[in-house]
Amino acid sequence: MNLLDLVTWTGTFVFALTGALKARASRMDIFGGMVMAFATAYGGGTLRDLLIGIKPVNWINDYVALLLVLSGTLLVFLRKEKSGRFEKAIFFTDAIGLGMFTAAGIEISLQSGLNDVYALIMGIITATFGGLIADILRNEIPYLLRKGELYATACAIGGATFLLLRNTSLNHQVILFLCIMIVVGVRIYSKRKRLTLPEI
Amino acid sequence: MNLLDLVTWTGTFVFALTGALKARASRMDIFGGMVMAFATAYGGGTLRDLLIGIKPVNWINDYVALLLVLSGTLLVFLRKEKSGRFEKAIFFTDAIGLGMFTAAGIEISLQSGLNDVYALIMGIITATFGGLIADILRNEIPYLLRKGELYATACAIGGATFLLLRNTSLNHQVILFLCIMIVVGVRIYSKRKRLTLPEI
Amino acid sequence: MNLLDLVTWTGTFVFALTGALKARASRMDIFGGMVMAFATAYGGGTLRDLLIGIKPVNWINDYVALLLVLSGTLLVFLRKEKSGRFEKAIFFTDAIGLGMFTAAGIEISLQSGLNDVYALIMGIITATFGGLIADILRNEIPYLLRKGELYATACAIGGATFLLLRNTSLNHQVILFLCIMIVVGVRIYSKRKRLTLPEI
Repeated sequence: MNLLDLVTWTGTFVFALTGALKARASRMDIFGGMVMAFATAYGGGTLRDLLIGIKPVNWINDYVALLLVLSGTLLVFLRKEKSGRFEKAIFFTDAIGLGMFTAAGIEISLQSGLNDVYALIMGIITATFGGLIADILRNEIPYLLRKGELYATACAIGGATFLLLRNTSLNHQVILFLCIMIVVGVRIYSKRKRLTLPEI
Repeated sequence: MNLLDLVTWTGTFVFALTGALKARASRMDIFGGMVMAFATAYGGGTLRDLLIGIKPVNWINDYVALLLVLSGTLLVFLRKEKSGRFEKAIFFTDAIGLGMFTAAGIEISLQSGLNDVYALIMGIITATFGGLIADILRNEIPYLLRKGELYATACAIGGATFLLLRNTSLNHQVILFLCIMIVVGVRIYSKRKRLTLPEI
Repeated sequence: MNLLDLVTWTGTFVFALTGALKARASRMDIFGGMVMAFATAYGGGTLRDLLIGIKPVNWINDYVALLLVLSGTLLVFLRKEKSGRFEKAIFFTDAIGLGMFTAAGIEISLQSGLNDVYALIMGIITATFGGLIADILRNEIPYLLRKGELYATACAIGGATFLLLRNTSLNHQVILFLCIMIVVGVRIYSKRKRLTLPEI
């Protein structure tokens, strides 16, 4: 198992949690939870693979990812908390998934020959598109488009750092790790401090 | 014409009816009806082909499928029933389409080299995704996610039967037929008896 | 730079304006504006490329298109008009983009070996799908499905003219130009005269 797989699988698991938590917050049944977990965990990477032309898409015949999504869904549906407490859990699992998938998305895009700017765009798509689909499915305004929140911006800052540090002598694994930490950090810090994008 | 084509075309036609009926229930004009018929009939197979990497997608340059969708739309829009009566017709055309597309989706996925579990997932996607898109287009909560209904579950039961019977000496056409009957049967029976997924 | 690139880039720019204007009308921030501009400008061509199997999709690594989308978004967000005045601007930029993308979509589809009917369908998809996605993102009933408006119909008339004139001795660039003019003309004329599709 290499580092990229580890990051992707961890991201898959926390995004499956995010999707299942959103399903419970929207009072869906366990099947709805599975659909939401799949959409959140697989959506972004699927769009990236389709756009770049990687075929079949990455998760086909991948049993590890499948088990991670199913176990994440079960875990969420076996707990008994009231739905009022899900918002906070969603925020944290989502932030961690954002970081993991930004890093993994950029890495895979660079390996496929994309240049830096488009690799950054693909990293943001990988990180944000699954949650966007899940939000459309549950008829909520997507997080991604909520006014002022530093959501994709967090991915952009972490991803840009990744791309800049590639030209230094830093160890590749350290760079991946820094990218993830920056995305998660910016997301959490901006939420705490209620930072927003400047109005024009 | 082989059996798989027959199943696919029949499914295309009944799903076109489903989409056009939904369009009328949502008071769209005939162009909206065509879009909804196309989305319902082609949506699931399109996503399956994109995910597996079959190119171009199956319906490109297929005039039979095109005529089936257009004639299904016309048929629905030339009738004069009030929209209150559409719900029941939608339920039945949708149930038949579910069965046809589950069987066709699994068959095509197996032919493309997917293993059983992912062929089953693709069968469910083929059967349910077109209706999901149509429901998003008309701003309804997708059938697929309505609490408790045995919708994708019906596809899963029929599809699992398909995959289990493949290892027996049963005739392939009989297995396809059984899969379709089981999906349609479970869907109708569960609706009649108000069966739902267990709450957790 | 050939004519097809010119038409595609102009269409990309006006559709980016359309998307950003819709974002402002829905009171999104500048990041939401960028997402909406990208979705509107790239959405239709992306779906066409995925369906036909062109890989990677056309805009990957295209810096011209990227700069056009970003500058279109900035242009819209730097102006200070009240949002009530956006509807009219959206209508016109959208009509021009419809014409450009219908022509470009048919041209690319023919070059990829599609026959006339499916090239026409791809032209309509290229022209309308980006706006459809943007409307779903901002939770509005898609223009495309609004009762009676001659929207995709305008694309169909212009596109059919394109395909008919191909069999004449007319210069190819003249035919492209006529197709664009007809789409834009039908769209504007029908809106002014409140023409609608016939009820059934």
